[in-house]
Amino acid sequence: MNPVFSVRWIGDAKSGILELLDQTKLPREEIVLSLACASDVREAILNLRVRGAPAIGAAGAYALVLAAREINDEGNWAKLLAEKAEWLNKARPTAVNLSWALGRLVRRMVPESARLSVDSKLDLLLDEANAIVAEDRSMCSAMGRHGVRLIKSGMGVLTHCNTGVLATAGDGTALAVLYEAHRQGIKFEAYADETRPLLQGSRLTAWELLRAGINVTLLCDGMAGMLMKQGRVQLVLVGADRIAANGDTANKIGTYAVAVLANHHGIPFYVVAPSSSFDLSLRDGSGIPIEERNSEEVTKPFGQLTAPDNVSVYNPAFDVTPAELITGIVTEKGIITNPLTKSISSQLTRDWQPGL
Amino acid sequence: MNPVFSVRWIGDAKSGILELLDQTKLPREEIVLSLACASDVREAILNLRVRGAPAIGAAGAYALVLAAREINDEGNWAKLLAEKAEWLNKARPTAVNLSWALGRLVRRMVPESARLSVDSKLDLLLDEANAIVAEDRSMCSAMGRHGVRLIKSGMGVLTHCNTGVLATAGDGTALAVLYEAHRQGIKFEAYADETRPLLQGSRLTAWELLRAGINVTLLCDGMAGMLMKQGRVQLVLVGADRIAANGDTANKIGTYAVAVLANHHGIPFYVVAPSSSFDLSLRDGSGIPIEERNSEEVTKPFGQLTAPDNVSVYNPAFDVTPAELITGIVTEKGIITNPLTKSISSQLTRDWQPGL
Repeated sequence: MNPVFSVRWIGDAKSGILELLDQTKLPREEIVLSLACASDVREAILNLRVRGAPAIGAAGAYALVLAAREINDEGNWAKLLAEKAEWLNKARPTAVNLSWALGRLVRRMVPESARLSVDSKLDLLLDEANAIVAEDRSMCSAMGRHGVRLIKSGMGVLTHCNTGVLATAGDGTALAVLYEAHRQGIKFEAYADETRPLLQGSRLTAWELLRAGINVTLLCDGMAGMLMKQGRVQLVLVGADRIAANGDTANKIGTYAVAVLANHHGIPFYVVAPSSSFDLSLRDGSGIPIEERNSEEVTKPFGQLTAPDNVSVYNPAFDVTPAELITGIVTEKGIITNPLTKSISSQLTRDWQPGL
Repeated sequence: MNPVFSVRWIGDAKSGILELLDQTKLPREEIVLSLACASDVREAILNLRVRGAPAIGAAGAYALVLAAREINDEGNWAKLLAEKAEWLNKARPTAVNLSWALGRLVRRMVPESARLSVDSKLDLLLDEANAIVAEDRSMCSAMGRHGVRLIKSGMGVLTHCNTGVLATAGDGTALAVLYEAHRQGIKFEAYADETRPLLQGSRLTAWELLRAGINVTLLCDGMAGMLMKQGRVQLVLVGADRIAANGDTANKIGTYAVAVLANHHGIPFYVVAPSSSFDLSLRDGSGIPIEERNSEEVTKPFGQLTAPDNVSVYNPAFDVTPAELITGIVTEKGIITNPLTKSISSQLTRDWQPGL
């Protein structure tokens, strides 16, 4: 079986397990974790063994199936399930997909479900988790098909962080566009920012693109400006962790700087994200919670201290790119272009689902 | 003796040695190399054991003293000295200070020097090298005194790479301004980009500022945009490896992106550099040679492979910031402001010296 996947469920609801490729070990080791306990999945989300907004959503959904198996008090089943969902949701705050997926599973337990056996309830939850994964796969394909229109032969395409197979349950978001272009035989140059501090660009994006036979050139984040100035980038494609109703987009730290640079050089800057990454309850990006992570991610890359150990560190995991720097947003429904607010509202509001 | 220095000569011309703090080992180990052989100094320059444009100039000058000691053919002394200078100059192409310092030593050997004994010639060379170092020290102090006018109480000041004691023979260029502000009791927040790939910001800048009692907050290069967006930066100070006659400035890779970001946020962006960093033989930045370094600096940070080993890499060591993004240039003579071309020509042309 193709080892490139992020999460997959093996078996039935009652005794199945979640397989998860430990992304912290890539590209040197391909270790698949077999998890049967919700707290292990939560730990994996917390420590970025699985990451990428849609993949976190999928992992969270399966984690809730595992958590539901661990409920002993049948009388308070629904209440305890909601508590487990809240507990899982706290693992990472920025990506809305986790809250969105957990919300779907919790809502699947309508009042009538109370009459069902525990086994049947677990089946329903797994069913919903599988549906999320299946929808994510088809959303990835659809984003690829819509986004490929942006890629012309000979273009240089820059991306940031990892938004591919490893970040979703399918082909990815921004990378799905590159996979589709590759499938269609369109020639392009792929450039990947290494994406400090955790190097998702070098460890994950470079790894999965090369696996798929797509050449990619790696650069440090500070080099993107020079690359653009040399005229080597014609398109920027990034993913999203949460998109507000006006189009403001939270994504991996460094995305905002890339957007400013693209804007300065007149290069189109597109966000590629499924509708599950939108949070229409937020008017703009100022309400998106930004996770601040451990300083050692900056001072001790890969176990080696490279800074004085008493230095202060600024380490937000995400930043928010304002809508005015975004040329358009590719979703599974099509390409939303400026003015983003109006288009988001007309394309997504009808069937948008809130999170927890 | 204060262990914070970049290079220093110990002894006389005939038997002295060059001491050099091995910056590749910082911040974990403070190892002082004692070098008596020109090729060892060249290796140290090549492998960034000593780096920073003015410090490279000083190291190169002392290396030429050592190289001159190794000349056996007295009849061809001047010619062989010029060849040694050319050989040393090739160690690193971008910083003009190396060529400038070597040029000074070579020109010190006027035709009349041919009559002197070898020992006297060596004395003259060491004398010139020491003069370069003494001038660099006083230029650093002067840059600090001029630049401190830019720093107001409560400002956040962002810098990139290392431009301090470790980059010069004195207090530094951009960091000299911070040292002077600290001395005058002005309170400011110092922010240092870590500066991938070689992390001069975290390894060197954070280290030397903390040593001097100046608090500093470290960030990854991709975080500078977000920091500016949050209103935490009121001034950017960077150094220079070579400045063309129109003000276009080559500096450590990532500087250009910081300049674009500063411009986008309306934050003043100043270059701090001595007149030895100007190359008035170049009309603009397009003629500045940009060193492309080994891909392993990107794929194998600190010995650990963090990218697929067959990935392509883009690794220019420097970029060029166009004059229009530069608010001003602080030199030892004062602050040059826009239009840069006119001011550079009026302030520097009179006593500017060419390189090799």
